[in-house]
Amino acid sequence: MPDSPTRPSRIGVIGASTCSDELYHTAYAVGRHVARHGAILVCGGLGGVMEGASKGAFENGGLTVGILPGGDPTSANPYVALPIPTGLGHARNILVVQSSQVIVAIGGKQGTLSEIAIALKLGIPVIGHKTWNIDPAIILAGSLPELIDHLEKTLENP
Amino acid sequence: MPDSPTRPSRIGVIGASTCSDELYHTAYAVGRHVARHGAILVCGGLGGVMEGASKGAFENGGLTVGILPGGDPTSANPYVALPIPTGLGHARNILVVQSSQVIVAIGGKQGTLSEIAIALKLGIPVIGHKTWNIDPAIILAGSLPELIDHLEKTLENP
Amino acid sequence: MPDSPTRPSRIGVIGASTCSDELYHTAYAVGRHVARHGAILVCGGLGGVMEGASKGAFENGGLTVGILPGGDPTSANPYVALPIPTGLGHARNILVVQSSQVIVAIGGKQGTLSEIAIALKLGIPVIGHKTWNIDPAIILAGSLPELIDHLEKTLENP
Amino acid sequence: MPDSPTRPSRIGVIGASTCSDELYHTAYAVGRHVARHGAILVCGGLGGVMEGASKGAFENGGLTVGILPGGDPTSANPYVALPIPTGLGHARNILVVQSSQVIVAIGGKQGTLSEIAIALKLGIPVIGHKTWNIDPAIILAGSLPELIDHLEKTLENP
Repeated sequence: MPDSPTRPSRIGVIGASTCSDELYHTAYAVGRHVARHGAILVCGGLGGVMEGASKGAFENGGLTVGILPGGDPTSANPYVALPIPTGLGHARNILVVQSSQVIVAIGGKQGTLSEIAIALKLGIPVIGHKTWNIDPAIILAGSLPELIDHLEKTLENP
Repeated sequence: MPDSPTRPSRIGVIGASTCSDELYHTAYAVGRHVARHGAILVCGGLGGVMEGASKGAFENGGLTVGILPGGDPTSANPYVALPIPTGLGHARNILVVQSSQVIVAIGGKQGTLSEIAIALKLGIPVIGHKTWNIDPAIILAGSLPELIDHLEKTLENP
Repeated sequence: MPDSPTRPSRIGVIGASTCSDELYHTAYAVGRHVARHGAILVCGGLGGVMEGASKGAFENGGLTVGILPGGDPTSANPYVALPIPTGLGHARNILVVQSSQVIVAIGGKQGTLSEIAIALKLGIPVIGHKTWNIDPAIILAGSLPELIDHLEKTLENP
Repeated sequence: MPDSPTRPSRIGVIGASTCSDELYHTAYAVGRHVARHGAILVCGGLGGVMEGASKGAFENGGLTVGILPGGDPTSANPYVALPIPTGLGHARNILVVQSSQVIVAIGGKQGTLSEIAIALKLGIPVIGHKTWNIDPAIILAGSLPELIDHLEKTLENP
């Protein structure tokens, strides 16, 4: 999975900036798994699913990257160790996807759909949970254990 | 529809860079309609649906704008009068959408889906023909006359 | 100068969003000259030098394009016929330069300096008036007649 | 200096993608210093000064981030642990600057000048060594010890 022996894997978690407690906890569990695997968590740096995943990775010793739409690094959620304040607005969605080797989509609205579409276009694997089911290439996971299982397989068999 | 009395309307046409003759002709008819209405045609500047729409507008006296993914203006199709070579890659999709007041989606794959998603997020009306039917907000047009009819209504009743 | 027989030339005018009356009038004269030559005026779409140039081109029948930092087309000055609301923040500076075949820099602060630097890197000719004199490649014009004269030469001898 | 207690400082090193051995070693020493201070090294991810700084930080246990112009993460130099493949071309320069709390400019041509200009516009401190001396706000360092000394002061007194 790594680009080179010197590089940890990069897992992107995408989803809405506000979400239910259930999706927040799912995102947290994914972030924790990413951290325990020694991978880097990439996300959009804001609240909701992005914060859940950041918190899960951060509290388990992982590196968390937040690629922000605005230009202010302090707009990142508190669990983002490395903010990348792009100032690019919606165009930052492309960077979140392009910087990831696997995308985990949790819930999500139109912004998430735009990211799934770009991931599919770039051939980046997408694991989806309670999200847009618009292409057979998306690996759907109905439950958290199934989601972790798919992520595990993707991390181990690049 | 115009932002101000000094500004013509801006109609975006999106779709794949290769397409069937049928979709090319549909795009041409939309471009022609845009030009005859005195509006500006905005597109991604490449081939397929983008070229069909550009040709239709160009040959009927309209202004054609191509917001290109690469940095080279000569990569635009020959019917683009004003190339905007962004050099932004896939992030240029956002600019095509944001620069338009209405989006007409004709066919299209994942890139088009990412543009439809951003348009919906921004609240920009989307008229779709043989394209992604993923949201009730998309105004679907099964035939060319229906497509022109919807476009007409959108242009006249902002 | 045109990329192709179907394309008018594109002249970029850059400078600060607030400026003296003198620089505003200089920018106006440049915009007027661009319009009379049948070329398209490209600028950042805001006030000051950008507005002066837009007004000069607009009032003389030219097409005016404003490549805006924000996502709102109505933030363009009233003389911009075609706003391109990028939402890219400072990154839009690159697009203003890349979309132009010649850059005319009038006054300007650090934002203008960043644009001059990118133009020089891309090999796009820069005509400068009361601006950053940081590279021998910049064609300096001490007066308005000299500025118009340099622009004329650049437009006629691509 | 950190944005928040959970965040390491982010130091950007900018300069040309090819450089003399002397500047490479200077960049290496800056990268090493950044790593020993527990800060994150941000750069453009390519060769020359960017590689020297990445190597210095990487070999001393620091986190190295390469914000790349292209869309391919493997285009990063081998000392970049976290590639951010933006696909934005020259517009990525803005992101390198915006993501940094201090910029160290070592040598450099027009691309570096564009980055210095944006840093000055954003009010981000710039320490310069054998680079563009175009604004009194740039903290000039004639020698490596002087450069490290200025960096030390900036890191300790936010």
